Amino acid sequence: MTTRPPAEVGMSIEQVDTPALILELDAFEKNLKRMADEAKAAGLTLRPHSKNHKCPMIARQQIQLGAVGVCCQKVSEAEAMVYGGVQDVYVSNEIVAKPKIERLAALARHARISTCVDNPDSIKDLSAAAKSYGVNLKVLVEVDVGGGRCGVAPGEAAVPLAQAIQKSPGLSFGGIQAYNGSAQLLRTWDERAKAIKETADKCRATVDALKKAGIPCELVSGAGTGTYPHEMASGVYNELQVGSYIFMDVAYAKNFGKDGKPFRDFDHSLFVLCTVMSVPTDDRVISDCGTKAISVDSGMPLVRDFPELEVLKMADEHGRMVFKGGQKASNRKASVGDRLYYIPGHCDPTVNMHEWIVGTRKDRVEAVWPVTARGPGN
Amino acid sequence: MTTRPPAEVGMSIEQVDTPALILELDAFEKNLKRMADEAKAAGLTLRPHSKNHKCPMIARQQIQLGAVGVCCQKVSEAEAMVYGGVQDVYVSNEIVAKPKIERLAALARHARISTCVDNPDSIKDLSAAAKSYGVNLKVLVEVDVGGGRCGVAPGEAAVPLAQAIQKSPGLSFGGIQAYNGSAQLLRTWDERAKAIKETADKCRATVDALKKAGIPCELVSGAGTGTYPHEMASGVYNELQVGSYIFMDVAYAKNFGKDGKPFRDFDHSLFVLCTVMSVPTDDRVISDCGTKAISVDSGMPLVRDFPELEVLKMADEHGRMVFKGGQKASNRKASVGDRLYYIPGHCDPTVNMHEWIVGTRKDRVEAVWPVTARGPGN
Repeated sequence: MTTRPPAEVGMSIEQVDTPALILELDAFEKNLKRMADEAKAAGLTLRPHSKNHKCPMIARQQIQLGAVGVCCQKVSEAEAMVYGGVQDVYVSNEIVAKPKIERLAALARHARISTCVDNPDSIKDLSAAAKSYGVNLKVLVEVDVGGGRCGVAPGEAAVPLAQAIQKSPGLSFGGIQAYNGSAQLLRTWDERAKAIKETADKCRATVDALKKAGIPCELVSGAGTGTYPHEMASGVYNELQVGSYIFMDVAYAKNFGKDGKPFRDFDHSLFVLCTVMSVPTDDRVISDCGTKAISVDSGMPLVRDFPELEVLKMADEHGRMVFKGGQKASNRKASVGDRLYYIPGHCDPTVNMHEWIVGTRKDRVEAVWPVTARGPGN
Repeated sequence: MTTRPPAEVGMSIEQVDTPALILELDAFEKNLKRMADEAKAAGLTLRPHSKNHKCPMIARQQIQLGAVGVCCQKVSEAEAMVYGGVQDVYVSNEIVAKPKIERLAALARHARISTCVDNPDSIKDLSAAAKSYGVNLKVLVEVDVGGGRCGVAPGEAAVPLAQAIQKSPGLSFGGIQAYNGSAQLLRTWDERAKAIKETADKCRATVDALKKAGIPCELVSGAGTGTYPHEMASGVYNELQVGSYIFMDVAYAKNFGKDGKPFRDFDHSLFVLCTVMSVPTDDRVISDCGTKAISVDSGMPLVRDFPELEVLKMADEHGRMVFKGGQKASNRKASVGDRLYYIPGHCDPTVNMHEWIVGTRKDRVEAVWPVTARGPGN
C-alpha cells in the first residue's frame, strides 16, 4: 500500500508531482550542524527526537554528527528506526499494552532500547518481558515538569518508581524524563527562560530526592527546539531531545530570540509543494494541497515567496487562498498550474501524512527518502 | 512501507492494538442501506464519494446496493478505486497537471472515467491525453453554487466551456458539478433548505443557459450528507455525491434534523479505539491517540460511553482528557490500560491517517480492509 513517490532522484524540481513534501538539503544540513555544534560545545548529549522526521535516513545524519541515538514516542517508530540501522533508541513515552511491551523487549535483542514509566504496573510488565527475551531495558521515570501531560509529580514521587526499577530483573534505572512541552511556544525569550528555570528546579528537586534515597540519577533528559538554550544553561539537564530544529515550522518561527527579534537560528527547510488548480475569481486561488497533505492543528501554513497570498482555509483536498486586502495591481497574479511552497504550521503531523521526503538541492531532486516510521503509532 | 495491521480477522476486539480505526459493521450496513433506499425511492442516481472511506471494499458494497460508481477527488484515489475493482469513477475535481491528466486518460482504458473543469486550458490537455490513449472522457463543468471554492459562476459562464468540451476529440460533455460544501454544516433544517434552494436556482440557471445554447445537460451532480434531502427535492439534481453518511462524525452530528432534534438519521459507525496510557492525577487521563491518528481540523473527538470525559487537547501522540467539572464521586474512574472509543470530529482526514479499517461485529473482528486510496493525493 506504499503510495507513489512524487519524484525520482535526478529530476528537476519542476517535474515533481504535487502535493510533495520537500526538504531543502542546504538549509536542513545547516540546521543539523548548528545543533550538533551547540550541544558539543555545551557538553550535553544530543538525542534528537525522531517523532518529527520519522525517517531513518535523517536519524543516520544526526548520529553521524555526534548524536548518541534518537528518541521516539511509539513502539512502531522504534521498530522503524532499528530496521533503518539506528543502534540506540529511547521511547520517551509510557508503553502500557503488554503486546507492545513484548515488541519493545524483542527489539532490545537488536539495539539498545530504553523507555520511561509513570506507574508501578508498567515496571512489572517491562521486567517480565525483559526477562522473557533475555534483554536489559533502561527505564527512566517521567516527571511532570510543567507539561501537564504524563508523569509523576516532581520530587519524592519518583523515588519508589526508581527503587522498583532497580529491584526489577532485566531493568536498570536510567534517570528522569523531563520534557516541558508547554514552554516551547512561549513567545519571548524571557518567558521561556522563566518557565525552564522552574522546570529545572523541579528536576533538581527530583534528582535530590533520588540522591537522598541513595539512587544516582544518570540522565536528566528533555528540552525542545523552543527552549534548549535554557536547559543547556540549567546545570541539571545532561541530554537534549530537540527535534523540530531540523525543519522549523510556522509555529516555532513565531517565537522571538534572545535579541527580541524573530527566532531564526534555524532555517525553514521543509515545505509542501503544491499546484494552483483553480483561480475562479480575481482574488481567490485554490491549490491541490489540503488537510490530507498538511496539518492545520497549529494554524494555517504560510505561502513562501508569495507573502500577499493568505491561506484562509484548508479543506480535505483543497487549499483556499486569497490576496490579502483583495487583488491589487501591486500583487503578482497567480495562474492555474503555478507551483507554490507552503511552510507547514506544524511539521510533525504534516510529515506523518507523507511516505516520501523529497530532498532537493538548488533545482534538482537529490534524495527520495522513505518515511518508514509514519502511521497512527501502533 | 505498509504499517502493521492492528488486528486480524477472528480476534476479539479486546486484542486489537491501538490506536485503531474501528468500523462497527452493523451500524455501517444500516447507514449504507438507508441512503441506497432513499436515493432509489427518489429516483436519483447515487454516486457516493469515496474521498471519505478511500477503501475499495466499501465502494464495492455501495455499488452492490445500487450505486452507479463512486466519486473521488484525486487521480491517486481514482487509480486505487479502479485497482480495487470499481468500474466507474468520477473525479469531481479539477486535474490540471499534465502527468496527472495522462494517468487519468490511461486509467480510462480500464474503467469509465469522468472528471470536471473550470478553465479552457484543461479541456485542451484532457482532449490531447484522451486522443493519445484512445479513450473517451466524460467531462463536467464545475459551477460555484455557493461553496466559494473552484468553479465558474452560475449561468452563462458554463456555456463556452461546455461547447469547448463538445468540440474536443476524445471528450464528451457530461453536465455540471454543483456541490455546495458550505451548506453541509449549517445547523438547522431551515438554514440548509434555504441554502440549497439558492444552490438549486443556480443549477437551474446554468441548465437553462446551456439549453438555450442547444446543449443538453445530462447530469446535475452534487449534494452531501448534510443537505441531500434538499437536493433530492429540488427537481434539478439527478445525482447524489454523499459520502459521510456511512460513518457520521461529530461535525455532522451537531446538525439538527427536520423535527428540530439532533440529526440521527445515520449512526456513528467509525471510531478510533485508543488505550489509556497514563492517569497522572485524579482528573487527568491521557490516551495513546493524538493528531497522528485522529484529525482535529473540525474540532475535538467525543469519548463514546464516557460522556464525563472531555478531550481538551490532542498532541501529536497523546490525547489529553479531563473529567468535566473535575473528578466527582459520581464519575467512573479511568485506569491505565482502559480502552476508549473516540468519535472523530471529522472522518475523512482521520481515515486518511490509517492504512487499515478494522470491521467489528459485536465483540469480534470480522474484517481488516486496506485503505488503498489514502495518502497526500498525488
